[in-house]
Amino acid sequence: MKSTLVAGLTATRRYEVDKGRTIGFMGDEARVYNTPALIYDMEVTARDLLLEHSDAGEDSVGTRVEVDHLAPTLLGQWVEITVTIEEVKGPGVTFSFTAKDSLDNIGKGVHKRFVVGVEQTKARLLAKAEKAKSAS
Amino acid sequence: MKSTLVAGLTATRRYEVDKGRTIGFMGDEARVYNTPALIYDMEVTARDLLLEHSDAGEDSVGTRVEVDHLAPTLLGQWVEITVTIEEVKGPGVTFSFTAKDSLDNIGKGVHKRFVVGVEQTKARLLAKAEKAKSAS
Repeated sequence: MKSTLVAGLTATRRYEVDKGRTIGFMGDEARVYNTPALIYDMEVTARDLLLEHSDAGEDSVGTRVEVDHLAPTLLGQWVEITVTIEEVKGPGVTFSFTAKDSLDNIGKGVHKRFVVGVEQTKARLLAKAEKAKSAS
Repeated sequence: MKSTLVAGLTATRRYEVDKGRTIGFMGDEARVYNTPALIYDMEVTARDLLLEHSDAGEDSVGTRVEVDHLAPTLLGQWVEITVTIEEVKGPGVTFSFTAKDSLDNIGKGVHKRFVVGVEQTKARLLAKAEKAKSAS
């Protein structure tokens, strides 16, 4: 983690609501941006902001999300997501986020990530894979 | 909503962690179940439980998720998600949920949904689509 990783950093990104981001259980003409897609896009925005302030060999993993999904966004609209770093405490980083489309504020919440070493994390994952194999 | 829709109802479902549910930014051998996929699978479990206790023409939309993603699950493992209805207050339903894989408790949280009329919701969505078109 670079010394530039501090509270107050912010990033805004716009995403097109394509079909893969929507849920169609009310019919094709009523496809709306789903909550998992909102969270995915928010996580990408937050992770990329962290990467700009991380050292080589570091990445981050998400540990907590709180989201209020306030309004529906239709297939073909865009959404704009803003993440802001609220706190940096050791490797733990807390973000707030908001999301809007061209008409409404559609979401807000809190997100926590941990900055990790990629090689150490891989080693932990491979150890779990071995354990899962011998348990099955 | 049927009179059978009450606190205490619960459902458990198992999902295979296939490639589409994983994130691969630490390399292909370290693909792990991502938080949006956990939320997607949890929402499907909760929605299907609600549908069993809904009248014709009703469905539900998610309004809030709080999730702690506690441990990584690897590509090829299964996850088992349990949702429990904690409160029914008018059309608002609050669930708690837990998730585990073969080795670890991997997640827990709270989820809120609203039971809605499909036709009324469609009408609201089409009105928003019209408004978005004339605003763009």
